[in-house]
Amino acid sequence: MPNQTQAKHPLKMFALNSNRPLAEKIAAAAGVELGAATIKHFSDGEIAITVDESIRGADVFLIQSVSDPVNTNLMELMIMVDAVRRASAHSVTVVIPYYGYSRADRKARSREPITAKLIASMLQKDGVNRVVTLDLHAAQLQGFFDIPMDHLEATPLLAGYFYEHDLLENLVVVSPDHAGVSKARRMADLLHAPLAIIDNRDPNKSTTDADAVIGSVAGKNAILVDDIIDTAVRISISAQTLKNAGANDIYAVATHPVFSQNAVEHMAASPLKKVIVTDSIQLPDEKNFDKVEIISVGDLMGRAIRRIYTDQSVGTLFLNEERENTKA
Amino acid sequence: MPNQTQAKHPLKMFALNSNRPLAEKIAAAAGVELGAATIKHFSDGEIAITVDESIRGADVFLIQSVSDPVNTNLMELMIMVDAVRRASAHSVTVVIPYYGYSRADRKARSREPITAKLIASMLQKDGVNRVVTLDLHAAQLQGFFDIPMDHLEATPLLAGYFYEHDLLENLVVVSPDHAGVSKARRMADLLHAPLAIIDNRDPNKSTTDADAVIGSVAGKNAILVDDIIDTAVRISISAQTLKNAGANDIYAVATHPVFSQNAVEHMAASPLKKVIVTDSIQLPDEKNFDKVEIISVGDLMGRAIRRIYTDQSVGTLFLNEERENTKA
Amino acid sequence: MPNQTQAKHPLKMFALNSNRPLAEKIAAAAGVELGAATIKHFSDGEIAITVDESIRGADVFLIQSVSDPVNTNLMELMIMVDAVRRASAHSVTVVIPYYGYSRADRKARSREPITAKLIASMLQKDGVNRVVTLDLHAAQLQGFFDIPMDHLEATPLLAGYFYEHDLLENLVVVSPDHAGVSKARRMADLLHAPLAIIDNRDPNKSTTDADAVIGSVAGKNAILVDDIIDTAVRISISAQTLKNAGANDIYAVATHPVFSQNAVEHMAASPLKKVIVTDSIQLPDEKNFDKVEIISVGDLMGRAIRRIYTDQSVGTLFLNEERENTKA
Amino acid sequence: MPNQTQAKHPLKMFALNSNRPLAEKIAAAAGVELGAATIKHFSDGEIAITVDESIRGADVFLIQSVSDPVNTNLMELMIMVDAVRRASAHSVTVVIPYYGYSRADRKARSREPITAKLIASMLQKDGVNRVVTLDLHAAQLQGFFDIPMDHLEATPLLAGYFYEHDLLENLVVVSPDHAGVSKARRMADLLHAPLAIIDNRDPNKSTTDADAVIGSVAGKNAILVDDIIDTAVRISISAQTLKNAGANDIYAVATHPVFSQNAVEHMAASPLKKVIVTDSIQLPDEKNFDKVEIISVGDLMGRAIRRIYTDQSVGTLFLNEERENTKA
Amino acid sequence: MPNQTQAKHPLKMFALNSNRPLAEKIAAAAGVELGAATIKHFSDGEIAITVDESIRGADVFLIQSVSDPVNTNLMELMIMVDAVRRASAHSVTVVIPYYGYSRADRKARSREPITAKLIASMLQKDGVNRVVTLDLHAAQLQGFFDIPMDHLEATPLLAGYFYEHDLLENLVVVSPDHAGVSKARRMADLLHAPLAIIDNRDPNKSTTDADAVIGSVAGKNAILVDDIIDTAVRISISAQTLKNAGANDIYAVATHPVFSQNAVEHMAASPLKKVIVTDSIQLPDEKNFDKVEIISVGDLMGRAIRRIYTDQSVGTLFLNEERENTKA
Amino acid sequence: MPNQTQAKHPLKMFALNSNRPLAEKIAAAAGVELGAATIKHFSDGEIAITVDESIRGADVFLIQSVSDPVNTNLMELMIMVDAVRRASAHSVTVVIPYYGYSRADRKARSREPITAKLIASMLQKDGVNRVVTLDLHAAQLQGFFDIPMDHLEATPLLAGYFYEHDLLENLVVVSPDHAGVSKARRMADLLHAPLAIIDNRDPNKSTTDADAVIGSVAGKNAILVDDIIDTAVRISISAQTLKNAGANDIYAVATHPVFSQNAVEHMAASPLKKVIVTDSIQLPDEKNFDKVEIISVGDLMGRAIRRIYTDQSVGTLFLNEERENTKA
Repeated sequence: MPNQTQAKHPLKMFALNSNRPLAEKIAAAAGVELGAATIKHFSDGEIAITVDESIRGADVFLIQSVSDPVNTNLMELMIMVDAVRRASAHSVTVVIPYYGYSRADRKARSREPITAKLIASMLQKDGVNRVVTLDLHAAQLQGFFDIPMDHLEATPLLAGYFYEHDLLENLVVVSPDHAGVSKARRMADLLHAPLAIIDNRDPNKSTTDADAVIGSVAGKNAILVDDIIDTAVRISISAQTLKNAGANDIYAVATHPVFSQNAVEHMAASPLKKVIVTDSIQLPDEKNFDKVEIISVGDLMGRAIRRIYTDQSVGTLFLNEERENTKA
Repeated sequence: MPNQTQAKHPLKMFALNSNRPLAEKIAAAAGVELGAATIKHFSDGEIAITVDESIRGADVFLIQSVSDPVNTNLMELMIMVDAVRRASAHSVTVVIPYYGYSRADRKARSREPITAKLIASMLQKDGVNRVVTLDLHAAQLQGFFDIPMDHLEATPLLAGYFYEHDLLENLVVVSPDHAGVSKARRMADLLHAPLAIIDNRDPNKSTTDADAVIGSVAGKNAILVDDIIDTAVRISISAQTLKNAGANDIYAVATHPVFSQNAVEHMAASPLKKVIVTDSIQLPDEKNFDKVEIISVGDLMGRAIRRIYTDQSVGTLFLNEERENTKA
Repeated sequence: MPNQTQAKHPLKMFALNSNRPLAEKIAAAAGVELGAATIKHFSDGEIAITVDESIRGADVFLIQSVSDPVNTNLMELMIMVDAVRRASAHSVTVVIPYYGYSRADRKARSREPITAKLIASMLQKDGVNRVVTLDLHAAQLQGFFDIPMDHLEATPLLAGYFYEHDLLENLVVVSPDHAGVSKARRMADLLHAPLAIIDNRDPNKSTTDADAVIGSVAGKNAILVDDIIDTAVRISISAQTLKNAGANDIYAVATHPVFSQNAVEHMAASPLKKVIVTDSIQLPDEKNFDKVEIISVGDLMGRAIRRIYTDQSVGTLFLNEERENTKA
Repeated sequence: MPNQTQAKHPLKMFALNSNRPLAEKIAAAAGVELGAATIKHFSDGEIAITVDESIRGADVFLIQSVSDPVNTNLMELMIMVDAVRRASAHSVTVVIPYYGYSRADRKARSREPITAKLIASMLQKDGVNRVVTLDLHAAQLQGFFDIPMDHLEATPLLAGYFYEHDLLENLVVVSPDHAGVSKARRMADLLHAPLAIIDNRDPNKSTTDADAVIGSVAGKNAILVDDIIDTAVRISISAQTLKNAGANDIYAVATHPVFSQNAVEHMAASPLKKVIVTDSIQLPDEKNFDKVEIISVGDLMGRAIRRIYTDQSVGTLFLNEERENTKA
Repeated sequence: MPNQTQAKHPLKMFALNSNRPLAEKIAAAAGVELGAATIKHFSDGEIAITVDESIRGADVFLIQSVSDPVNTNLMELMIMVDAVRRASAHSVTVVIPYYGYSRADRKARSREPITAKLIASMLQKDGVNRVVTLDLHAAQLQGFFDIPMDHLEATPLLAGYFYEHDLLENLVVVSPDHAGVSKARRMADLLHAPLAIIDNRDPNKSTTDADAVIGSVAGKNAILVDDIIDTAVRISISAQTLKNAGANDIYAVATHPVFSQNAVEHMAASPLKKVIVTDSIQLPDEKNFDKVEIISVGDLMGRAIRRIYTDQSVGTLFLNEERENTKA
Repeated sequence: MPNQTQAKHPLKMFALNSNRPLAEKIAAAAGVELGAATIKHFSDGEIAITVDESIRGADVFLIQSVSDPVNTNLMELMIMVDAVRRASAHSVTVVIPYYGYSRADRKARSREPITAKLIASMLQKDGVNRVVTLDLHAAQLQGFFDIPMDHLEATPLLAGYFYEHDLLENLVVVSPDHAGVSKARRMADLLHAPLAIIDNRDPNKSTTDADAVIGSVAGKNAILVDDIIDTAVRISISAQTLKNAGANDIYAVATHPVFSQNAVEHMAASPLKKVIVTDSIQLPDEKNFDKVEIISVGDLMGRAIRRIYTDQSVGTLFLNEERENTKA
């Protein structure tokens, strides 16, 4: 009897509170039901979690975006991992469509923290075995982890919008600042378009002066590319700059729609025609305004998880791979 | 020149956002100024911290209660520790007057987390060298840490209230449930009073039936003792039970005034005469109602930190020590 | 050939020296044979162990109570874990019916160790994957571990004694001190009996004064409940106290019969009628005196291990779960 | 009272084999002598090190660039750290002017290593307490470490070349590819110059087509900025591209002169007028050809170490700090 | 679908660059093909590796001798392990036929490193799960690892040479120095021969004086036994000493043919008749001179790996086990 | 008292129970008083320790031989370290004159533990900063630790016995087996004597046949050298063998007098004239028989500790350093 043949470790998937609609899409694409867990937020602010079905020996996937409320969502995830580990899961994979704090990825000035690394350390200390995430602010965040990470890419899905809507003519892809040029280059490759950059020479004041544009945009349809739209100040000013430099239709494309503060107002008032984003962060209805187009990453992530679970390669279609080697 | 004489590691103390008034009292008692740090909460919910003065080689003390908003306050502390470590502090001591999540200190049921341990692990992974805290929910939490912990005790200060107000006659100390009898016994020792317990035989319904009282309270002034008053439901029902059992004046004593939800309404409506608590958690004005008496732990904690910093024994006056050995 | 279907990791169980009779009962209930290992104690006091059968890729369960000789039994376990790890076991579960040093679970006074945590750290450093144990002195010891723990409960088995012997009438359950009231409350729930407490107001001298009893015991049959009976001084004095307070038949119930020093003499001379314990610790014949009734936990533990091995839930019948939530 | 005088840990500095001339400049600027150590390379390729003076209780600084032969230099450093730790140093700081493998800082494709992180992990496991380095390929490498890192910046020294040689007129700063725009932006800020970028739209073939330049360079003196010049293929082609686009004098500026393979030939044959680099890597005479100008970082690093050792802030003049916050 | 029965973790084996001919023999004996991986050595000395086939969920075996170039070969192995771990292998076993730096296994003098331990720590930190190696310089190196190690033995294969060539008459086994007597004793047991030792009383000068021989060798055929032949100075001088002491045919036997510097010249010029070694290190043609006999360990290692992979005992035929217990 | 102008961390030294007389000698030589600590052994076998004086910020040295009762002495040390760490010591050095379990330093056969490494891991996990020990069974045990170790040597003190008693004429130093020849060689160097070895060709039976002696002993005074005398069977048989081979006076020399079982009877009945040992293990009176000469290591260890504490080199006089390099 001790030597019976055995079923594989069962696959169990749970959604925490940040983005349940996406979790359901992921689960459907992965071919599983979301498991049952009770997540209570007590009146004193503490979170209590009970996993409501046995997960002994299971490969558990937990889906949570570290989006606003960032710290609460992060602690939900940390606490759930602890519960799952102590409940004898075989492995724990955290699926983080939006990795909050990812911009705090280096000391920009003296005596600052590196919070993106802090979170990586916390998750690893908590016993996580693997991370699945999407379009990190910097690819170097992979090195913050010693465990395997599958770093999925939404750019082809976002580029797909322009193919599907027949918007491929006369394009220029624009980076709104000097730090994000590689992301714009990747989109330009997918759309076979030229590149331009908005370069603000005086960091102390914003400008919409057409001179700030490096490269040619006049008479073209411009696609501003970023990974995150947070307050939307930069993307809105950049749209105006492009308009002043003679661009025609102006689009903004970004994976993660944080849309904090007056982001919606800024974008609504700007010359932006459309803002194409993914559902990595759940947008409340009041932020899902008419310019917004949402491309779901649920199918992408669900299929990737299915392949991970069955030990198949998570191939070229899924991952953030790079066009060229950096040795030169 | 490389061997010049050197100052000892300087003492630097910083307050985070949970309880700045207490931090100022602690600093004053320790004989230092609070250091300068910028703590920003961005519109997307993320926290950014910059320490605004050099702390290279310093012994840094960070003061933060993990009170509501629990997760945000905890992350403030975690991020600050990361900043301080990367800024080359010699040591980091976290001073946690109220250790949130302390009641999640064991698996009460299958597939639950042990969040109090999770926090201990997070702090240690983050590079903390020492913890100073006050009246933990269970003394065993000390064992969740491998680093030194100074576990201070507020009970003598709370007992002092009854000495100062000449309320020592005809007392009985009451534990509101079976799990907190040791805390009540400690208070009873300090006040030379007998003990009683409220025992709820049916866990599924609350009762104010006088029969629930084990021990004699009729005609006596009763002091209900707990470590935390959270929703205040139990303490308020217990007060009514004691009243039904014939107690005269009824006091509640607790170290940590969480006072969540309708706690103030419950206590106001109850037969409680006074609720004596400490300032381990900062009470907003609307919760500091007329029955509340606040005893500050600032002087206690400040003097303890001064002794810790100068490597003097943190003696009997300060620590949670026990009356008897448990071997028998 | 490299891709053949595979048998599950085989189950291997080994007994060390502390309690082989219990180990055999556990193995029988789990449906396995105890494996062969040679454990030598050399004349210089050192222990040498050789595992005498291959355990490559096996899920290994090691059964050892950390009972007297405590340090030797602990080191036997530590050394066996090292041998098993280096011999390429797939996983190592330590089954510890009696977790010695469990009362050293906090710093009761300055400059004391927390030995219960030290042992937890030693076992984890040694490479243990899981712990199965029984009625820990404090449930918080679960938090001393970062690995999964199954904390089994003997109280229903002990309560069963009173059901089987028709002793349910006119009972009162008594805690012999203020620290163990929760354990007594759990037994009282199972027996539907009221609760009383023996409260010693002067920690410096023992007393058998009837006044020390809080609650009503006169004319009732009393069951003293503790987790460990060590020197049996407290339980014997408590029995006399209850007798002085008018109790009729007096029973002692405890999971772990340490019975050190003159424990047998104390209990024999006391008014205790029966002492009901488990076989978590192997009692030598001279300590198994006429008042002792031993309830075996072998079947409980063996069935739990079988469920753990086959990734089935170790349900409500087995575990120490709690009656109520502590938030209030 | 906290500031009584104390004998500080002595400062000891050792050079390994990669770049002794720079180590001597650093030592001179820090005001110490280099310590004595014997580093043997045996005929079988193994390295043996003996530290030839006592370092018990010392703060030890080890200077080594991880330059060609990369693996041997890295192992020299690892072995020396082991020796120093076992010889009871109080702390070990590794000073790495050139951090080899820094371009392997993320998985660019499936099943690649992240070697820059591997090295960080190796150094930390080896017991290093702090890292001092210079112009990392990506600032995110700071997050690969949990220990403090001082990340010094050579850009102001390199910019100084143009001030000292009165070459500030009519400049444009050019990034040779889309990934390095931030570095070019930093240099452009220091020289108050505009920015241009060379954008290669077809990653599969190099081009010197003037159309690849985004931004305006015709008639200007161009400064190509990179952190590392390795094979010099890209920088040489970029110079030709700029020449084709009408640039006048063309300079290349980089912190780290790897100059591998035919780098010297490529640059000699290119339209580059001058190649300004630092001595972070020791150039053999045959690579120090007439176009090369070497700016020493010895004084910068030595003064930084002196400040680190004496717990003074390593201020704005030294560190890589950023011009703007990335939240927008 | 999530509960399908599963294939075992597939076996994947990769060779790095140090000894591909041996790796192919090992693979053949284990019944697998060597997997595809690209290992590039760039012109700046850095190594880049890409694993060219999916290894998700596989049990991966990496074959690499840490032989000259020692540091490069070691880093190849370290980097490959990192790649394999991040590519989601189920387990990583490093197969190290020759463990370089093994003689740096203790501090022979003050302020020296213990490089053999450093390498063990590096491999474990890198995520290795198991080590398979051959004839370590000291068996204690097993204790440098906390992970399982299979320590294979070549001595029976080497002894087999004398059986196969009918050279068993009139033998004496000789240890060339006092530190290696146990190795000689093991060979003597296998050949049923007596033992002698060469004892150099003056460590400051080599001698070929016949008096240095302890034991009787005159008129016998002598077999000098060592684990490593590096510069071959000692073995060559020892052969001359034996010749001077009247030995007839003189053989040298060693597992690891490092043959550095002028080793071949020394041995060629010595009275050695044959030098019997294994292929744990790949000998270039110019070092494979006429006295050398190479016994392959490929079959031994391949069969051992097959047994490890299938969780069968790696029995007495394979392992370095000892003849007697050391307690006495 | 210890020193210089420094508010240095005070030196505190404590003796545990294994060898208090030696601890007092060490303390005297180091110039300190032994600190006060209460070590209780309860009747159930558990150990409880309280440190009775403040050690905050102190450099603490704990003296304990891991001699019989080995496991209890080891746990005393482990528990004391835990107490000292939690009591905020600045550093903890364990001084282990006799390191028990040191012969379990490798897997001699399949499925054995490496207990000497287990102990090293336990001590390091427990927070020990440094180890001071004496004449380890194998020097490689240094590599079981990642923390600094000072490995002192008693051989010169033992050799001193022969100088002081004018016993230098006509000596031969003999290793009682093939594994300990290096120890004998070291003694032979100090006494300028030749070497011989006793080689038992049949491991299954002991022999006193004169043929077992390799080398010349007839007519000489022989010194048998070992590190440990445990049961004394081998040393006594060896003495008889030497007598049979014609030796005159026969001495045994060993650092650690374990003297277990019938060791005294064996040695008393043997031809041994004197048995010269150190006080690394405390000999009870009944084992201190007339042939025994005890050389104290107290002064050696005390002076070494004094130098360690004051960061002076622990030079050539103290340490186990080796005569020759092993590369050849």
